[in-house]
Amino acid sequence: MTKSRDPEPGDRIVIDKKPNGKIKEEGILLESHEPGVLLLKLDSGYNIGIKKEDIMKMRVKEKAKSEEEKEKLKQVKGKPRIDIIITGGTISSSLDPKTGGVKWLTDPNELFKFYPEIFDIADIKIKNPFMKSSENMDSDDWKRIAKETIKSLNDNQCQGVIISHGTDFLHYTASALSFMIKDLNKPVVLTYSQRSTDRGSSDASLNLYCSAKIALSNIGEVVLVGHGSSNDDFCYVLQGNKCRKMHTSRRDTFKAINTSPIAKVSKEKGVEILRDYWKRKKRKAKLDNSFEKKVGLIKFYPGQSPDIIDYYIKKKYKGLVIEMSGLGHVITEGTNNWIGKIKQAIDKGVIVCGVPQTIYGRLDPMVYSPGRQLKKAGVIFLKDILPETGFVKLGYVLGKTKKKEEVEKLMLENIAKEFNNRLGDNF
Amino acid sequence: MTKSRDPEPGDRIVIDKKPNGKIKEEGILLESHEPGVLLLKLDSGYNIGIKKEDIMKMRVKEKAKSEEEKEKLKQVKGKPRIDIIITGGTISSSLDPKTGGVKWLTDPNELFKFYPEIFDIADIKIKNPFMKSSENMDSDDWKRIAKETIKSLNDNQCQGVIISHGTDFLHYTASALSFMIKDLNKPVVLTYSQRSTDRGSSDASLNLYCSAKIALSNIGEVVLVGHGSSNDDFCYVLQGNKCRKMHTSRRDTFKAINTSPIAKVSKEKGVEILRDYWKRKKRKAKLDNSFEKKVGLIKFYPGQSPDIIDYYIKKKYKGLVIEMSGLGHVITEGTNNWIGKIKQAIDKGVIVCGVPQTIYGRLDPMVYSPGRQLKKAGVIFLKDILPETGFVKLGYVLGKTKKKEEVEKLMLENIAKEFNNRLGDNF
Repeated sequence: MTKSRDPEPGDRIVIDKKPNGKIKEEGILLESHEPGVLLLKLDSGYNIGIKKEDIMKMRVKEKAKSEEEKEKLKQVKGKPRIDIIITGGTISSSLDPKTGGVKWLTDPNELFKFYPEIFDIADIKIKNPFMKSSENMDSDDWKRIAKETIKSLNDNQCQGVIISHGTDFLHYTASALSFMIKDLNKPVVLTYSQRSTDRGSSDASLNLYCSAKIALSNIGEVVLVGHGSSNDDFCYVLQGNKCRKMHTSRRDTFKAINTSPIAKVSKEKGVEILRDYWKRKKRKAKLDNSFEKKVGLIKFYPGQSPDIIDYYIKKKYKGLVIEMSGLGHVITEGTNNWIGKIKQAIDKGVIVCGVPQTIYGRLDPMVYSPGRQLKKAGVIFLKDILPETGFVKLGYVLGKTKKKEEVEKLMLENIAKEFNNRLGDNF
Repeated sequence: MTKSRDPEPGDRIVIDKKPNGKIKEEGILLESHEPGVLLLKLDSGYNIGIKKEDIMKMRVKEKAKSEEEKEKLKQVKGKPRIDIIITGGTISSSLDPKTGGVKWLTDPNELFKFYPEIFDIADIKIKNPFMKSSENMDSDDWKRIAKETIKSLNDNQCQGVIISHGTDFLHYTASALSFMIKDLNKPVVLTYSQRSTDRGSSDASLNLYCSAKIALSNIGEVVLVGHGSSNDDFCYVLQGNKCRKMHTSRRDTFKAINTSPIAKVSKEKGVEILRDYWKRKKRKAKLDNSFEKKVGLIKFYPGQSPDIIDYYIKKKYKGLVIEMSGLGHVITEGTNNWIGKIKQAIDKGVIVCGVPQTIYGRLDPMVYSPGRQLKKAGVIFLKDILPETGFVKLGYVLGKTKKKEEVEKLMLENIAKEFNNRLGDNF
């Protein structure tokens, strides 16, 4: 292996591969934490790993920008500013070769190494309230993110907000922000990656690029931006409270549920709007982040004892969201009949809501007898809402009021487009 | 409105519609329970309702077969016999105009009125162990259906079995039968309808027709047959333990999860096989329907207290299936850390399994720290299994043995193709 000088991360390099140098790879050298492997960002935005033993020749085509040059580039006048709120997750982690564990990426210069394109589009201000995997987040974290987001929205220098986040419960945070932030005057874009930044197949780069494009758009909603296919070719813009993580590992894991994507974004075609959305409001954004933590989510299954409701009553829960079967059913016959226990809970002041465990479609309690019995008992049926969004909404509403009539009114009100009233029978 | 004689259900009639009789409808008159509306089965198999006030003229083209003729037709020698086990659900109900409630259809002659085509294909023997909505069924019902099915499978006169069933928890029953019936020597076909038989848009007719075609095929598996699209054009044959009700109301509500459909069936093209399947075994089918009822299913949500596990320990549950986030995670930080409680449950002899709440994809506990901690604590990760199938399988396995090592071995064994080992990273 011959080389002109030791290449450094950030250099544009050309590699001639063995056996005869006829196969060439060109791209920006990234920091690699795997010994014996070079990580290269191709112009397509895709990262590839190349084994050092497969390299015949390697030369530096263009040297990396120096730290000062980078700083200059980042602060070119006239570039709009995007605030990135980093909260943890795969997108802000890389393997730390020293400890063997995960290293969080919070330093803008480290981000620059992995995602140089985003700095071409905008000035980036990094905020980092905490670092967590999303399965470890709860409503306190949603409140903190909402507060941090509001600060950026009401900062005249900032044009849009990106929140980078773990994938597991990203859709919960997106739902929570859709209720907790009112009058969005700028886009709030949540994004993620399914593969860590130092893996060749990382989806972080495209997701961040598309997020930046959307952060500068005129969308005044909380949206989730991520891969629209398992290729590294385009992203979808999804309504934050009507999407869900639907696959353990695919890069296009988030799917629009009971609605369609708002837009499609690619490097080639930019932003293509696919349906109506709320525009940026011309006033200050408002924080509305009170939240009642004593809300439970129960997925109903065959033969399940209704005693589970006793557990929640005993623990002084204020609200229960039940993932019911079909159009909104539970057991209404035999020893495990749920109607009595649900009535007990409601009599004790617990708010009980029904959501569809099929995920897709709308509840309709009036078709069959179990639904009618539950409605009569006082259950609130949350139409075509996602179970996850129903859970978040009940916590949000109970944070405002505990009065049954007010709660019911708010739960059925279409606050943040969590219901799709145009959803047909056959969506 | 003029007419030659009062038409009766079963007659082939021709209707001239108002205002000028130029629009004509021809089909078999069905029993209609809606006053002022005629229900007509078109030759396409689709049912339509016509308001009596829109009818200009109506004539009987061919009279309905008499009861004796029908009986003769049903018993033509040489036609193969299919056993239909009727268990309830929308497919075996019609509106009872006398009570305003639902009327169960168990009489073969009533079935004939609604589904004449199936009697052209086969002799039909009706069995009716009970009538229930599927959300009211539990493992006792699965055991009874399995027993009834085995009797038909080992009856030399019977060529295949159809089980008609409610939709809400049909996928649970399909999973259960896939474990409880060994050495299938004939097809076991579960089917359903989303719209009751007396509605113009009922999907029952096509589903039953396609089920009969599959009941006479060489498939030796428990399968679910139902609409493959929202049109009334074809059905998919789905592997019973790898499909799920994914929509509250669509006729194509059941989707293959982490696998593809086995076949496609239509009236035009018959059965088109799409992938490998198990063929009919050339021996007696065996019943294996012991089941442990003390199994719980928990869907993990953000901020959830691990105290829920105490409830199940206190109630002496033998097994817990946890719908984990992402690749197999729960809370592993802060006051709601689950690891300790899960260890406690396992120490007390409770079997704890992880399943993916994303529904699609495969768990991989080794990628992130929460998964590794759970694995170390003794959680059994059930790969790409459906949560519903995981729940059923744990009850089935605990019905055989309570010894941790034996349970773990059986839970990870691919007993009824509940795992798709060829499922790629990017399925």
